[in-house]
Amino acid sequence: MATVDESATDTPDAYEQLLERSEKLTNVRMASMVLGWDQRVMMPEGGTPARAGQLSTLSSMGHELLVDDDVGAWLSALESQELTDEQAAVVRELRRKYDRAVDVPADLVGRLTTHQTQTQQVWQEAKGNDDFGHFAPALEELIDLHRERASAIDPAENPYRVLYEDSLPYLPLETVERIFDELREHLVPLIAEIQENGRDLPSPFAGHTYDEETQMALSEAALDVLGYDRKHGRLDTAPHPFMSGNQFDARVTTRFREDDPLDALTATIHEFGHATYQLGLRKDEYGTPLGASRSSGVHESQSRFWENHVGRTKAFWELFLPTVKEHFPHLEDVTVDEAYAAANRIYPDNLIRVEADELTYHLHIILRCEIDRAFVEGDLEVADIPQVWNDKMEEYLGVRPDTDTDGCLQDTHWSYGFATFQGYTVGSVLAAQLDAAMREDLDADVDDLIREGEFEPLREWMIENVHRHGQRYPSEELIEVATGEPLTAEYFLEYVDEKFTDLYGL
Amino acid sequence: MATVDESATDTPDAYEQLLERSEKLTNVRMASMVLGWDQRVMMPEGGTPARAGQLSTLSSMGHELLVDDDVGAWLSALESQELTDEQAAVVRELRRKYDRAVDVPADLVGRLTTHQTQTQQVWQEAKGNDDFGHFAPALEELIDLHRERASAIDPAENPYRVLYEDSLPYLPLETVERIFDELREHLVPLIAEIQENGRDLPSPFAGHTYDEETQMALSEAALDVLGYDRKHGRLDTAPHPFMSGNQFDARVTTRFREDDPLDALTATIHEFGHATYQLGLRKDEYGTPLGASRSSGVHESQSRFWENHVGRTKAFWELFLPTVKEHFPHLEDVTVDEAYAAANRIYPDNLIRVEADELTYHLHIILRCEIDRAFVEGDLEVADIPQVWNDKMEEYLGVRPDTDTDGCLQDTHWSYGFATFQGYTVGSVLAAQLDAAMREDLDADVDDLIREGEFEPLREWMIENVHRHGQRYPSEELIEVATGEPLTAEYFLEYVDEKFTDLYGL
Repeated sequence: MATVDESATDTPDAYEQLLERSEKLTNVRMASMVLGWDQRVMMPEGGTPARAGQLSTLSSMGHELLVDDDVGAWLSALESQELTDEQAAVVRELRRKYDRAVDVPADLVGRLTTHQTQTQQVWQEAKGNDDFGHFAPALEELIDLHRERASAIDPAENPYRVLYEDSLPYLPLETVERIFDELREHLVPLIAEIQENGRDLPSPFAGHTYDEETQMALSEAALDVLGYDRKHGRLDTAPHPFMSGNQFDARVTTRFREDDPLDALTATIHEFGHATYQLGLRKDEYGTPLGASRSSGVHESQSRFWENHVGRTKAFWELFLPTVKEHFPHLEDVTVDEAYAAANRIYPDNLIRVEADELTYHLHIILRCEIDRAFVEGDLEVADIPQVWNDKMEEYLGVRPDTDTDGCLQDTHWSYGFATFQGYTVGSVLAAQLDAAMREDLDADVDDLIREGEFEPLREWMIENVHRHGQRYPSEELIEVATGEPLTAEYFLEYVDEKFTDLYGL
Repeated sequence: MATVDESATDTPDAYEQLLERSEKLTNVRMASMVLGWDQRVMMPEGGTPARAGQLSTLSSMGHELLVDDDVGAWLSALESQELTDEQAAVVRELRRKYDRAVDVPADLVGRLTTHQTQTQQVWQEAKGNDDFGHFAPALEELIDLHRERASAIDPAENPYRVLYEDSLPYLPLETVERIFDELREHLVPLIAEIQENGRDLPSPFAGHTYDEETQMALSEAALDVLGYDRKHGRLDTAPHPFMSGNQFDARVTTRFREDDPLDALTATIHEFGHATYQLGLRKDEYGTPLGASRSSGVHESQSRFWENHVGRTKAFWELFLPTVKEHFPHLEDVTVDEAYAAANRIYPDNLIRVEADELTYHLHIILRCEIDRAFVEGDLEVADIPQVWNDKMEEYLGVRPDTDTDGCLQDTHWSYGFATFQGYTVGSVLAAQLDAAMREDLDADVDDLIREGEFEPLREWMIENVHRHGQRYPSEELIEVATGEPLTAEYFLEYVDEKFTDLYGL
């Protein structure tokens, strides 16, 4: 645990008690996370009713631990004291959590949770039957409940902004939306150019089937090459890959497509990136905000860095293609250039976000953010979502879904909440910015390091510049500390321009 | 949840609130159980520090939920009301839990937990170095702490009896000790007779190695035959097999010995027995004492019933030997009689409890109970334990350990607590009594059912007579309800006499 500095010895009690409470809160959250991992990876299906009760009990107990009057008193006492920088960061983060929870009535929390569970069910039915009309009333009710929650947290603030800050604190919505505008203006014509004038890329992996067992071994081999420490992690399978854990135990999952080994490999490397962040957090700060990840956007920057700036480089394929061939000998004639191209193929006719390529992905995200801001703010009727969705798909990507199942009903997110998509694209943008800063900083050439399988310097740089800070800095400040400048689309756009112009011979 | 009967509508609030608290307590306990299962089966070793914190937080939160003044007030209010039988049982069980927790100072709970963790470490070192002197001071301190706890719970009662009631409530220590005396007097000469005059039993499984993967498949096949529902359970491996879960999700584990497939098979069937109990509990009573298992002794009766009264019968081997041969074709010439004999072999020269056979096992248990009662009550100096242990081993089994590692340091139990061994032998005794009652009750011949793989009637009988009652009856009463008489050694002794006299040609 963090030690109390001399300057604050007049309030050791409040600070120590706050830290103790923070550790308890972390333990309850981490226990829920283990239960969630188990539910998605290990639990027999019949276990659901009991597991739902366990998670609900832990969630309400965590809430009670947080909104306790004592916490408010400790925070107030500490805010009038002189604190070290680290102590001030701890107090700031716990104040933020406390303020966002204390004014939300328990009754509203309960109604929201219950309605989310029901909406999740309704969404599955609606998606299965391509019936947006079935989903719409539940969605409207969910919007109302979230507006009510936002208003309880900060009645003077725009509700969308309040919800947005759940997942991306300390990074102004304006900044993100300005960056999203730049991306849209740049990526739409780039994608059109690739479609019109880009050469055809070979697809050396197509036309074969790839058994799960060998794909799993290949994912394990990739994790070995990247340096995933199995003393602090493990790889399993899950329908929707995710990472779960903390600085002592950060586990990853992957899933398999029979016709394409790149799908699992990319998912594995992506989740490995998330795990590096957890494992890079300070162990001695487990339980305090200094030992916790900053935000969903920063987390995604770590997964995207490893997925795109390592796993999709030509250097990585020089290193790793022989291992792929060992696992699937029928690929023996595939060249590095072919594999590299296959890993970077753009296919704008795809309708589904989770299957999208590195460029079109962000238009899927931007479209969702534009739409959910509009309907949360009342500028778009829920009934009009399908029409607007399809129009934007046509405008940005040149394709129009035939069904809402492949359109606005494809993602589960809107059966839980809103303003949650931004982090995905912020992550990619930040990954490129971090990649550029790292390449500037490191003496060795990063591509040479990748080609040699020397990933330690990359991981060390991220630990030093991002992970070890935990929540010490607000997001904007962390980005400046790590890269020397505020969040900018510049590096991401440079990176995609250079890569795809070359790859598609534009 | 249980519905409130007409007769108690004047106190719906207290009863409903008590049930709600009971469900919360259950959820916290079950969450800890999932964390424990994960720790033993899935967790990477580096996860320990964070997991220890999570378990400790859940444990202290569960304690606070239980000893809350409200709980005491609800119980007192309900105890002066007219209640249905089921309500009265719920109140009785929660009163018992509350009373055993409320007077134990939080400080003592903390000191005990910390000391248990340290003693566990010291015990491992002592066992590794065959150095009882290293363990003795920690053991003495642990005894003092447990005496302090016993005295807090009931200052007027013998502390050993208080500790004993942790694991075997409502079954007088006198009853158990009388039964243990009968067993010792009967089993010591029976084992000696087998050694002196028993014929040699063939060992058809010896001399081969058995790979883990095929052994795992064989265990899965055994679970299929027995009717283990994978919607509510799963099989994994663990160094010390155990069952974990509730009526929705009851998981089993096994482990493998390369030279003997019976070891894993027996462990799997034993843990399956534990799982049948959890899965037989009422789902609509999850969270209340009516949906919880009765005691360690009753739990063990279920595992021993399936292990011994099913898995060690000739009928079972008639059914299952062909499946064993499918997995290990080199066994094709093994006969049912040979397999049955191998499953029932007695080897009194074994020093280790967890490797003991069906008869000598109980002398290992009785010896431990005699010794731990003596030192908790101050009749035996800790320093004298090794001597007394070895003398008793010689007296009961005719063997003397050369080292304390193979003697009084072999089990981990005394680094946690005392009076915990009785349940193992009570379980076997009760299993035989239940087996006899079941055979009396069922129209069909139980051996015929086993031979045909018709296990449903056996499971149904156990659900009807044991599982569905949960904690409705105190242990002694449950045994009478299920078998028509109090706990008795009679059936167990008849069963072993008949089986081993026949098997060894005595």
